[in-house]
Amino acid sequence: MSAYFERLTQAIQTNRSHLCIGLDLQPEHMPEGVWRDTDGFVHFGHLIIEATADLVCAYKPNIAFYEAMGGGGYHTLRKVLEAVPETIPVIADGKRADIGNTSRAYARAFFDRLGFDATTLNPYLGYDSLEPFFEYEDCGCYVLCLTSNAGADDFQIPNSLYLEVARRASEWNRRGNIGLVVGATQPDRIAEVRRVAPDLPFLIPGVGTQGGDLEASVRAAANARPDGGFIITASRSVLYASSGEDYGAAARREAEKLRAAIEETLPSDRPPSSL
Amino acid sequence: MSAYFERLTQAIQTNRSHLCIGLDLQPEHMPEGVWRDTDGFVHFGHLIIEATADLVCAYKPNIAFYEAMGGGGYHTLRKVLEAVPETIPVIADGKRADIGNTSRAYARAFFDRLGFDATTLNPYLGYDSLEPFFEYEDCGCYVLCLTSNAGADDFQIPNSLYLEVARRASEWNRRGNIGLVVGATQPDRIAEVRRVAPDLPFLIPGVGTQGGDLEASVRAAANARPDGGFIITASRSVLYASSGEDYGAAARREAEKLRAAIEETLPSDRPPSSL
Repeated sequence: MSAYFERLTQAIQTNRSHLCIGLDLQPEHMPEGVWRDTDGFVHFGHLIIEATADLVCAYKPNIAFYEAMGGGGYHTLRKVLEAVPETIPVIADGKRADIGNTSRAYARAFFDRLGFDATTLNPYLGYDSLEPFFEYEDCGCYVLCLTSNAGADDFQIPNSLYLEVARRASEWNRRGNIGLVVGATQPDRIAEVRRVAPDLPFLIPGVGTQGGDLEASVRAAANARPDGGFIITASRSVLYASSGEDYGAAARREAEKLRAAIEETLPSDRPPSSL
Repeated sequence: MSAYFERLTQAIQTNRSHLCIGLDLQPEHMPEGVWRDTDGFVHFGHLIIEATADLVCAYKPNIAFYEAMGGGGYHTLRKVLEAVPETIPVIADGKRADIGNTSRAYARAFFDRLGFDATTLNPYLGYDSLEPFFEYEDCGCYVLCLTSNAGADDFQIPNSLYLEVARRASEWNRRGNIGLVVGATQPDRIAEVRRVAPDLPFLIPGVGTQGGDLEASVRAAANARPDGGFIITASRSVLYASSGEDYGAAARREAEKLRAAIEETLPSDRPPSSL
């Protein structure tokens, strides 16, 4: 298991949580009284992190929202992440991939420059587009397998491409640093992916705003890995749980609810206390 | 035809060129005497643009190389692009896509914030991940179909996924602003894509350093569109044609050679002068 997955396991055990919060800061969703500028975003991000850091196993900013802020976006991202405790790993949700020479530059940007512990990757360009990320053996690489949106039906599901991606990702996992993204919107398919890739850890988006089935997803994904085999990510439903000044407390309540729902669903032979 | 493809056609006709230069600035490849910092990159980029602006139809920076520069990368990118004449469109090679809500943020970053005229997109997440880009009807959207790297064999070619992507992209092209990325490394397959998507414009990488077959690719891709149906992109072979102080002149010579090779290959019923 790579250093990233060891750190993740530690955070899961310490906080008794498989919940990862997506730090997707969107100007149009900021609660009342939060300025829609760098200072406002950083203030909001720090308050959310401080309100939830003992309830999560990871944070996951989606890079798109910071790029949409313009030239200062990366600065804002780094400032927001300063509040994340050392013990909680951070996943760059970037879904990048390019030809090898270029993927190397993305890997450098995410792992060396921005200091992320893990990232999400798009498999369309195949192995040599992902290998420059895999080479960072201390980092985690979650390959998109079955996404939570309607468009998963367009190319992922026909000919069971998502299962082929899962199969190949398992083969590529020589360094123990590869995982899969599988959306909570189709728990039956998560079970299929689990059969094809029994050992890979899953990152599961799509609960909360997207309406995925949390309990069924957890049951389909859980395995005997020390980290339980999965993390669940939620973003908007936590960050913007209140549009008023109580947004920190509201985010904490929502995170507590999700954490409890996940831990209560874990198979009875693996109670949270035995993790 | 969208405003982007009209501008591209104008540039193709004015400069009699289907050549697009990839502005992929890599510190490790900078010629002698160029500083490996923002000032150096901007100086190098401006000199390359000034040396080639009358020989190309577009420029295409790959965003990865600017992200790899760290926090100042986007600043460097904008500074470099200041030298591009108004008449030459600029394509963001970002290969982005995410679930709809998030793709909207990427589209805003590329088209609104950074002012790009077109971008490349990854189709793995399906229609709703691409539609937020397509909605910018004045901009161009090149969907990855068949890439130029070895990894194209992993998922694109089995079950002819790349042809299915081409078919769907044609259906989605209601606004006339969609094109396809097809690599020059497999000209026979470019011909297949052309049969499936007779009207879509192609962006063709993979000549130069990657060893694709320029002439066969042009013959397979050319169609009766006013823009000829394709552009050819080259990056390293032009930018780093010389590692000495004559790099501007060397880039110009290489660009002239490529432009001539493309225009001479165009079908005889479509000589460059009739464009």
